[in-house]
Amino acid sequence: MTLACGVDVGGTKIAGAVVDLEGKILEEARVESPAMDAEAIEQAIADLVADLRSRHEVERVGIGAAGYVDAKRASVMFAPNLALRDVDLKSELEQRIGLPVVVENDANAAAWGEFAFGAGADVDDLLMVTVGTGVGGGIVLDGRLYRGAFGPAAEIGHLRVVPEGHLCGCGQRGCLEQYASGRALVREAKTAAAGGVDAAEPLLALAGGDAEAITGPLVTEAAQAGDPFSIELIASLARWLGGGIASLVAVLDPAAVVIGGGVSEAGDLLMLPLRSAFESQLSGRGHRPVAEIRLATLGNKAGVIGAADLARH
Amino acid sequence: MTLACGVDVGGTKIAGAVVDLEGKILEEARVESPAMDAEAIEQAIADLVADLRSRHEVERVGIGAAGYVDAKRASVMFAPNLALRDVDLKSELEQRIGLPVVVENDANAAAWGEFAFGAGADVDDLLMVTVGTGVGGGIVLDGRLYRGAFGPAAEIGHLRVVPEGHLCGCGQRGCLEQYASGRALVREAKTAAAGGVDAAEPLLALAGGDAEAITGPLVTEAAQAGDPFSIELIASLARWLGGGIASLVAVLDPAAVVIGGGVSEAGDLLMLPLRSAFESQLSGRGHRPVAEIRLATLGNKAGVIGAADLARH
Amino acid sequence: MTLACGVDVGGTKIAGAVVDLEGKILEEARVESPAMDAEAIEQAIADLVADLRSRHEVERVGIGAAGYVDAKRASVMFAPNLALRDVDLKSELEQRIGLPVVVENDANAAAWGEFAFGAGADVDDLLMVTVGTGVGGGIVLDGRLYRGAFGPAAEIGHLRVVPEGHLCGCGQRGCLEQYASGRALVREAKTAAAGGVDAAEPLLALAGGDAEAITGPLVTEAAQAGDPFSIELIASLARWLGGGIASLVAVLDPAAVVIGGGVSEAGDLLMLPLRSAFESQLSGRGHRPVAEIRLATLGNKAGVIGAADLARH
Amino acid sequence: MTLACGVDVGGTKIAGAVVDLEGKILEEARVESPAMDAEAIEQAIADLVADLRSRHEVERVGIGAAGYVDAKRASVMFAPNLALRDVDLKSELEQRIGLPVVVENDANAAAWGEFAFGAGADVDDLLMVTVGTGVGGGIVLDGRLYRGAFGPAAEIGHLRVVPEGHLCGCGQRGCLEQYASGRALVREAKTAAAGGVDAAEPLLALAGGDAEAITGPLVTEAAQAGDPFSIELIASLARWLGGGIASLVAVLDPAAVVIGGGVSEAGDLLMLPLRSAFESQLSGRGHRPVAEIRLATLGNKAGVIGAADLARH
Repeated sequence: MTLACGVDVGGTKIAGAVVDLEGKILEEARVESPAMDAEAIEQAIADLVADLRSRHEVERVGIGAAGYVDAKRASVMFAPNLALRDVDLKSELEQRIGLPVVVENDANAAAWGEFAFGAGADVDDLLMVTVGTGVGGGIVLDGRLYRGAFGPAAEIGHLRVVPEGHLCGCGQRGCLEQYASGRALVREAKTAAAGGVDAAEPLLALAGGDAEAITGPLVTEAAQAGDPFSIELIASLARWLGGGIASLVAVLDPAAVVIGGGVSEAGDLLMLPLRSAFESQLSGRGHRPVAEIRLATLGNKAGVIGAADLARH
Repeated sequence: MTLACGVDVGGTKIAGAVVDLEGKILEEARVESPAMDAEAIEQAIADLVADLRSRHEVERVGIGAAGYVDAKRASVMFAPNLALRDVDLKSELEQRIGLPVVVENDANAAAWGEFAFGAGADVDDLLMVTVGTGVGGGIVLDGRLYRGAFGPAAEIGHLRVVPEGHLCGCGQRGCLEQYASGRALVREAKTAAAGGVDAAEPLLALAGGDAEAITGPLVTEAAQAGDPFSIELIASLARWLGGGIASLVAVLDPAAVVIGGGVSEAGDLLMLPLRSAFESQLSGRGHRPVAEIRLATLGNKAGVIGAADLARH
Repeated sequence: MTLACGVDVGGTKIAGAVVDLEGKILEEARVESPAMDAEAIEQAIADLVADLRSRHEVERVGIGAAGYVDAKRASVMFAPNLALRDVDLKSELEQRIGLPVVVENDANAAAWGEFAFGAGADVDDLLMVTVGTGVGGGIVLDGRLYRGAFGPAAEIGHLRVVPEGHLCGCGQRGCLEQYASGRALVREAKTAAAGGVDAAEPLLALAGGDAEAITGPLVTEAAQAGDPFSIELIASLARWLGGGIASLVAVLDPAAVVIGGGVSEAGDLLMLPLRSAFESQLSGRGHRPVAEIRLATLGNKAGVIGAADLARH
Repeated sequence: MTLACGVDVGGTKIAGAVVDLEGKILEEARVESPAMDAEAIEQAIADLVADLRSRHEVERVGIGAAGYVDAKRASVMFAPNLALRDVDLKSELEQRIGLPVVVENDANAAAWGEFAFGAGADVDDLLMVTVGTGVGGGIVLDGRLYRGAFGPAAEIGHLRVVPEGHLCGCGQRGCLEQYASGRALVREAKTAAAGGVDAAEPLLALAGGDAEAITGPLVTEAAQAGDPFSIELIASLARWLGGGIASLVAVLDPAAVVIGGGVSEAGDLLMLPLRSAFESQLSGRGHRPVAEIRLATLGNKAGVIGAADLARH
């Protein structure tokens, strides 16, 4: 049995898993991410893999990293939340681990996970949208992960949806991520709560009266308990996302769009307004077959499963 | 020598050409387009091809049509300016012509032309942007024309760039085409001229004092003669286009973007502000290699050349 | 009994009326407007007044002109649709007519008409919004017509509601007039009809299949007969207008807002979505008394009635 | 000599001053604001006035409060940052103080201060714009403070400048205050610094590497020392403000616009781009006399001086 180890490297944690050929996870592990020290990140990954290997016959390692990865699947060119700039992570890790390593963008890895074993297993052309703190994407075309000419394709969070819109951490204005991410959701919630907007009072009360204590999961929880303001916050995010996906579908024409990431845990509170906005904003609807919008099925395991599987491709 | 016939079917004209394996045109022909009568269109294409075949040993026929073409390269599902809805153009034409026919979207055909023989001949991943009356696109990925899961991919003119923006003929609002096409250029010119905007007076004078007589080529001509208002109209179009391309590059990460179509005849008056807007609006610039923005080299022949060549693939 | 003559000077017609102290019209007259010849306009006004005077003892003349009028109520500084630039209309007309003349902006005159004898007769602070081909406004504060420091106050059609929005005939972008006027309504209708938008088909049929033949009154008529597309066109205009009025009420805090002009003939099809948008977009609602939004009651006579009455103030 | 006491009641402090008939301050005092307790606010004001009266023959008291004040100059209907809702502040204070009291909106008081003794002393029609944490306004028309029909006029910070724009503390979206206030400036600065935008690094360094430690005065300081990013942040705020003022001038046509508030301390770094944006966005420029845009001259004393003087009118 050929096992691979998938590792998901983010700004707050590093998660690893041993994954078999069917995408099944045999064992998982997780450590804090020493985000601001490149060497410490490498060592943490190596240690995590070493530990998992001690109990499983791992043959390959796939890394999913939150950043721009080059076309050779080796270097991280830039990562806003990690101290990795032009680091040849593949070489560094192969030296430390002694196994073949491939490096992929984390959302690309998640896209591959859903494509190979999850919500997109029945299609050839897939757009994955991960909605967490930020908005990421991955594209599978004709059954192959699409990485672009230089590596960083599918940066769909930086589709510009509003001219002169919100300033984004990327330095641009009006990026989709500023309207359709968990961070945007929390920003809106805090602004309303701190501004004394009446409708925000129940949410503010849930946060103990402190606007700064509002989090994404808290909004989701409040929405699921029926708080109209929180429901509307998620619906507003969903409408922006649906509009952005309508643009992406006009360009990519995938067979399915899979929605994952932490915010997708809101389920139908997210998916129903998202689908409705998508359908009403898609150019040429009624004159063309249209991608299905689906909820991801692998949850937050999509990244490690996809990274592991990509190590074998 | 294997010759193919490429045919470009638009709302106002049908152009055909006999094209060799190197993309060289041996002979051309052109007729008016009976745009609103499907059968007449088919007959006009068949007659045009018959005429060209009488002097050349044509073996295949490629059609580029301004509409949504299905994934089988056979049917036109929808074409806003042509009377083709769910017409199996491939079968109809093969019957009339007696040769293998493939049907492609016209901008896809142009993209392939530039990829195979023009400005994109040195790259594997290409985004073609055609800026004429509307804005069209074609995508070549890993050396293959990308058509999407259902056929109508690369509809980049319908990327939504302004929430609640200009109403588009597609029924949506804020499509790139409403800001960065020849039609948009003329609309802005007419509005300013009819409204008595001082700066528009020289252009209005060129149009004989009649705002309704302003055309795209007239604006280009005035701009090239130094009219500041016309220069700014083209620059404004270019900035919208550059912004839209920045979004598309974030998603597709091509090696090159090729700009064609009638408006591209403005040359540097278009390309300089376009490149500047693209560079300033691209997310992550400075941290990634970036696509070159190039002017098309095949002019308005890209479509017939590409369609002919696609008939052989 | 002191009678005054009110004259409404527009780009297509000149309308005059003899008006008594109660705002009652005793006689009306109307001629074509020689819009592009200043002297001809003056003579046409003089002739119209002379004719009315021959049957009524008129003592004063009030002119409402579609343009910027100076603070002395004498000169038309600028008029986009009339050949009047820096013309001392007061002097010219007093010479020709031999009676005291005052010149006012046409929407200001309409505002005064509604304030003195119409929908605003019970309040001291009034905002008049005229929605015809364009969007005009008039402001009455503490019972006095507000003309601004230099004359052209209340140009509410040029409130900027969309950054980088539609180009306006005034040379700016995103003016309210480009979203909430009869001209905007017709532009949207034509674009949709010409673009083959399915929903626009009934309206297109009403226009005999010719998109260019669509007019504002035709849209109103279709809407009143239940055409969903025309209803939505008017509702969209109404939402923009409601949003603009919410901004104006935040600044001016009037006791009433009166909606007049040709588009107001749509009645509740306009007023219901307008009020709803106004209420949902007004800052601080629930914490302040709010202006009533009312339909004008003097119809297209408000201008001549107001101009006549202003001649006596 | 008739002296009045002016009091400026904000969310963080209460400032008082004894002011003579020429607008000269004889003595000042200041205490912390017990913002969230209505009775404590009243007592703090009364104590402050009592203290000042012990050394000056004060005859009247004028209060400037950051909230909606009713048309009788008596009650605070709503104040987002103060615990005053439907409080008859006039009665409460007259009882505690034993002198005639008038209550005004704080920006209205500042407008009156600049009109009576400051940058607007030479005009009859004035728009005051205060740019501090938020954006406030005051309007003087024909030499009288304009309060609106119900009291809360001149809420210019809530002019909607972007459809579906930033959420405002008032519950609406796209308010000018979200683009042109000190709070907006700081939000943009923090977003860029936290996102790792290269250009923001010098500012981040000034804040000790902690994005959350960036303040408005720090940005002003950095800009004045030549930091390009901080200069651009202020210029961006200035452009939004200039655009908003262009809309307000189209409606109000004042003779002068006076810019005050803490952000105005940036001087020409604010005023030059503001004037430039105003001029380029004013409808009808070139065809009308235009308001001068001036810097306020009374600094943060405008409020107390104006409140004191309004107590005598």
